[in-house]
Amino acid sequence: MKYSFKNDYAEGAHPKILQALTETNMLQSDGYGLDSFSEHAKSILYKHINFPQAQVHFLVGGTQTNLIALSSFLRPHEAVIAVSSGHILVHETGAIEATGHKILSTKGKEGKIYIPELEALLKEHSDEHMVKPRLVYISNASEIGTIYSKEELETLYRFCKDQNLLLYMDGARLGAALTAHGNNLSLSDIAASVDAFYIGGTKNGALFGEALVISNPSLQKDFRFFIKQKGGLLAKGRLLAIQFLTLFQDNLFFDLAKHGNTMAGKIQKELKDLGFSFFIESPTNQIFPIFPKTLIEELEKDYGFYVWEDVSASEAAVRLVTSWATKEDAVKSFIKAVQKSSTYNLKK
Amino acid sequence: MKYSFKNDYAEGAHPKILQALTETNMLQSDGYGLDSFSEHAKSILYKHINFPQAQVHFLVGGTQTNLIALSSFLRPHEAVIAVSSGHILVHETGAIEATGHKILSTKGKEGKIYIPELEALLKEHSDEHMVKPRLVYISNASEIGTIYSKEELETLYRFCKDQNLLLYMDGARLGAALTAHGNNLSLSDIAASVDAFYIGGTKNGALFGEALVISNPSLQKDFRFFIKQKGGLLAKGRLLAIQFLTLFQDNLFFDLAKHGNTMAGKIQKELKDLGFSFFIESPTNQIFPIFPKTLIEELEKDYGFYVWEDVSASEAAVRLVTSWATKEDAVKSFIKAVQKSSTYNLKK
Amino acid sequence: MKYSFKNDYAEGAHPKILQALTETNMLQSDGYGLDSFSEHAKSILYKHINFPQAQVHFLVGGTQTNLIALSSFLRPHEAVIAVSSGHILVHETGAIEATGHKILSTKGKEGKIYIPELEALLKEHSDEHMVKPRLVYISNASEIGTIYSKEELETLYRFCKDQNLLLYMDGARLGAALTAHGNNLSLSDIAASVDAFYIGGTKNGALFGEALVISNPSLQKDFRFFIKQKGGLLAKGRLLAIQFLTLFQDNLFFDLAKHGNTMAGKIQKELKDLGFSFFIESPTNQIFPIFPKTLIEELEKDYGFYVWEDVSASEAAVRLVTSWATKEDAVKSFIKAVQKSSTYNLKK
Amino acid sequence: MKYSFKNDYAEGAHPKILQALTETNMLQSDGYGLDSFSEHAKSILYKHINFPQAQVHFLVGGTQTNLIALSSFLRPHEAVIAVSSGHILVHETGAIEATGHKILSTKGKEGKIYIPELEALLKEHSDEHMVKPRLVYISNASEIGTIYSKEELETLYRFCKDQNLLLYMDGARLGAALTAHGNNLSLSDIAASVDAFYIGGTKNGALFGEALVISNPSLQKDFRFFIKQKGGLLAKGRLLAIQFLTLFQDNLFFDLAKHGNTMAGKIQKELKDLGFSFFIESPTNQIFPIFPKTLIEELEKDYGFYVWEDVSASEAAVRLVTSWATKEDAVKSFIKAVQKSSTYNLKK
Repeated sequence: MKYSFKNDYAEGAHPKILQALTETNMLQSDGYGLDSFSEHAKSILYKHINFPQAQVHFLVGGTQTNLIALSSFLRPHEAVIAVSSGHILVHETGAIEATGHKILSTKGKEGKIYIPELEALLKEHSDEHMVKPRLVYISNASEIGTIYSKEELETLYRFCKDQNLLLYMDGARLGAALTAHGNNLSLSDIAASVDAFYIGGTKNGALFGEALVISNPSLQKDFRFFIKQKGGLLAKGRLLAIQFLTLFQDNLFFDLAKHGNTMAGKIQKELKDLGFSFFIESPTNQIFPIFPKTLIEELEKDYGFYVWEDVSASEAAVRLVTSWATKEDAVKSFIKAVQKSSTYNLKK
Repeated sequence: MKYSFKNDYAEGAHPKILQALTETNMLQSDGYGLDSFSEHAKSILYKHINFPQAQVHFLVGGTQTNLIALSSFLRPHEAVIAVSSGHILVHETGAIEATGHKILSTKGKEGKIYIPELEALLKEHSDEHMVKPRLVYISNASEIGTIYSKEELETLYRFCKDQNLLLYMDGARLGAALTAHGNNLSLSDIAASVDAFYIGGTKNGALFGEALVISNPSLQKDFRFFIKQKGGLLAKGRLLAIQFLTLFQDNLFFDLAKHGNTMAGKIQKELKDLGFSFFIESPTNQIFPIFPKTLIEELEKDYGFYVWEDVSASEAAVRLVTSWATKEDAVKSFIKAVQKSSTYNLKK
Repeated sequence: MKYSFKNDYAEGAHPKILQALTETNMLQSDGYGLDSFSEHAKSILYKHINFPQAQVHFLVGGTQTNLIALSSFLRPHEAVIAVSSGHILVHETGAIEATGHKILSTKGKEGKIYIPELEALLKEHSDEHMVKPRLVYISNASEIGTIYSKEELETLYRFCKDQNLLLYMDGARLGAALTAHGNNLSLSDIAASVDAFYIGGTKNGALFGEALVISNPSLQKDFRFFIKQKGGLLAKGRLLAIQFLTLFQDNLFFDLAKHGNTMAGKIQKELKDLGFSFFIESPTNQIFPIFPKTLIEELEKDYGFYVWEDVSASEAAVRLVTSWATKEDAVKSFIKAVQKSSTYNLKK
Repeated sequence: MKYSFKNDYAEGAHPKILQALTETNMLQSDGYGLDSFSEHAKSILYKHINFPQAQVHFLVGGTQTNLIALSSFLRPHEAVIAVSSGHILVHETGAIEATGHKILSTKGKEGKIYIPELEALLKEHSDEHMVKPRLVYISNASEIGTIYSKEELETLYRFCKDQNLLLYMDGARLGAALTAHGNNLSLSDIAASVDAFYIGGTKNGALFGEALVISNPSLQKDFRFFIKQKGGLLAKGRLLAIQFLTLFQDNLFFDLAKHGNTMAGKIQKELKDLGFSFFIESPTNQIFPIFPKTLIEELEKDYGFYVWEDVSASEAAVRLVTSWATKEDAVKSFIKAVQKSSTYNLKK
């Protein structure tokens, strides 16, 4: 069996989560998130977020969270802006458009939104023959592993407020971003610098689950109607709450994310020492080394990972993803496998 | 703490399910239902269903399943027909309409669709100024606990085929229906007599999960696109598979449902013996005794349940729901509580 | 060739309208309603409406107007309430649902909304598992020819405001309503007692065209985006403006409607004198006499009209529609035809 | 008053159209396109189209036609492909997305779709996490005046059929394309080489109106339901029919388009002789000369036109549009105005 560096959701959940679910299993509770576990989990998250007007909702997955949030925030003629690699733009099967909203694509810089491009796009969209740009979608960590600094986020948020734009952060890998080398953002900083964001559980040790935080009170009204209408209101809502309780009552969320980053960092450092270059510099749990295609073929025998894109006729960038569950032994074996097969080529 | 007869999803999951999730937890698998657990679970379900062209998809919840299935089966001008108590019509926040489709309401009979009403409705919808009726939605067990017989279902299906209508069965409580006194349908009968149906896990011992069965091959194409587009493609799809594996490899699904029915049957019998009448005769795990309002008030101190509707100024029907998790002791205590408080009134 | 009493759009337009279009034909103007004709037409309508914050938009047809208005006024989870005969509920091919909104049906009284039913419906819709009732749709004249009095409309509007509901009037046949015997509403009364309404041109002498009046400023924002997005922004917007200019600069609109009502009134009176009864008492240009089916068959040889519904095995209500274009001679001939064929039956 | 070269819908209609409407005005006809004028107009168009399985529907405007056609042809997960200048992509306020479908943008070549880009795009869209490309949208003439040759269209159609793609042609300016210098396509060629297209009336002498031709029988079913549901079924459908009758019974449609092209050709030739270069070489009624900004300012005093885009700090391309109604005198005066103001600069 191959060891997988394909993604950060290959295993089940951190054992503490299964344990918490097992311990509470036979207690009766109300349905649809109106139970005491949900209350408790929210109260703990509110402490982390530390933004009094924020409202938290627990949802099952990322695409679901994005589509429910964005379709509830926007009027029918309003559009989303995202970078061309944005998850909602390319990997959610047109989920946002299926709710009626266009996504306007910008090139971006290192996977992140770039204000001069926003300015140009706003200038272009001048009248009722075009959609009205209204919400900026960003991901942190981005789809290629990069992160936003506190200064970048605050500048972007001020720009958005000046332009009457909403700012939304997809936090599928927020744990990785917040524990990355170079990060200076906290959950509470984010809550104060976006209109809404979500804290991803699925890719950081939960069985499933995302915690949507709506900071902007004008976007909060009737939100549970939208969750239900889009099929996102889990009957046993407590399952989401118990997972987030476990993740946040003792900082497990951050510890797990840090482990993923550390494992990725180890691989990245070793590969650099071996002379490999990278498609992008990533401080989080997704890294993108450039490998000779012959090496890729060899590695694929024992390891699972995605080929990201061709860099030349003979080389391609691959994506390696680590997680809370990545074993240090697997990292070492992988490096050895690289060393073994590529030593000769690289020595020259 | 009150004992709840409010619904069949008040507890977590049957312990065997948590055990199976725990045992498989650290194994790596591919995401989005493309893993070996999903293959295995489907192969077991296919044996139960025994309908070669059927296709199974695992989804998280009932509203999600209904909206994904119906919106993928219908063209924009096509409408759904349901009885006025149908779950999609009243308790899913307009989820079907939100995908663009009208639901036409018929009165029905004992919570079930009534063919003469279908005929009248089809006659009325004669041209392009009206929607085109295209899919009949039924629930088995129905929203008031009644069930369809094999003959009823087959007659309805033939009618639908004659009229170029699709037939869809919401099986949120299919376990209860299939193990009810008087039932003569099997999963395989159903697969042969509907275009699609789902087998409900959430209300029968799973943490969550529904298995959608699409019998009609013309409705199967590209179905995974729809799941993803509506936010229903669970990253760790194995979670659904492992649950259904556990439920179906040793008939646990049927055993759990039978227990729920037995508990409801006990309450129903005892209440009848005490002289109470019922809003509807139900052979499944939802029962609807008519109680004096004074009795309701007393019972509400120790038990959770819903008041269904007023029957007179002094009496109301209540809904009591049992499940795989209902304790026999709780049933006995409840009957005692009724006996105690109402003895005198009823003796007369 | 049969003479048609089928509807009020069987002819082209009042000759003055064609004349106005011809006279202005070769003048150049800006597109999409941003021309001086549109400005002028609006200024004349604003005088009639006499409600300073109102905003007027010209649209091509009734279904288009309803769907653009309602889908722009509502958030995705909000529903419309209409009587069961409401045009949007039965004769617009699910146009409103196609924009994502459920329409809740109430029985109504004489084709009009009935407040006690609204109260019951609001009480039922209590939580996020159901849609949120938000807009009351009425038609004036109603689909069966009845009209709202000033007192009725004001009471309904106050009720709506108390309940946080929007009130919308479909005025496809508003001309007929405002010139009916018994009417005490003016355009300016209506503007003050609804959130939005439209003044129907198509059924009152225009080639096509409806003037949507949005009284409630909170519903006005970005409305032209919605018109364009739904395909309703006519390139040569002046065509709509020139027609409304012609209709409203000399009260032609009211004169035409009055003629239609007068013709219907004549038929109604004569038929009553002949002893016929009516399905509903209508003061406008749609009337619903009850005829023996044998008579219907005879009349159908020379006249076009719709059979509305069976009243008994031998009798049915028919709908006769008159208009600005109905010829008095045709009315006389029709009455004669009735007299001739049914004299004997009715004498008894 | 300025003379407008802004667009091809600045005037009303060709006088013969108004005359035909006036002559038929008081005849009664059935509503919604079920009248004898519609039958007649279709029969004449069928002769031009000469493609037995084609079906014609008359609609009011271009955006309406595009959104009704595309949303009826596609299942919810299917996407449209268009060039980045495509009208549906930039100037229809997200009308297609509002019906739930993503539009995938390609760069294109001279305003036309480019097959190698289609191939790349199809390769990228490999699984259910992405939308499924299904329909290729082209415009002829394109948004920048260029046209497709018979060979180009046939090659593209074969490619589409090989790839299971539908091909749709927006013919808002089809008259201009079919009468352009260099064109070798006929209506009947087009009918045989696309799945659907429309023949634009609005921009070629009608008051309004587009004739949608659906060549592919599998896309024809229930189409009138879609027209009605989206608000496009004109009550007095005869208005559309009478206009198309007038345009097509004596080739008026082609004569009018040719006049527009001739006028544009004259301007283009004269400007070339004066030494001006062009943003794009266009054989149709939209031309794009590059002018010094100082000249643009001067011309704007007497002429209406759009500045298309900056070419350098001192120069910009402008768009001049001619039509059936463009007066030769206006063309001459415009050229004189250019000569007068720019003579000196250009002589050097």
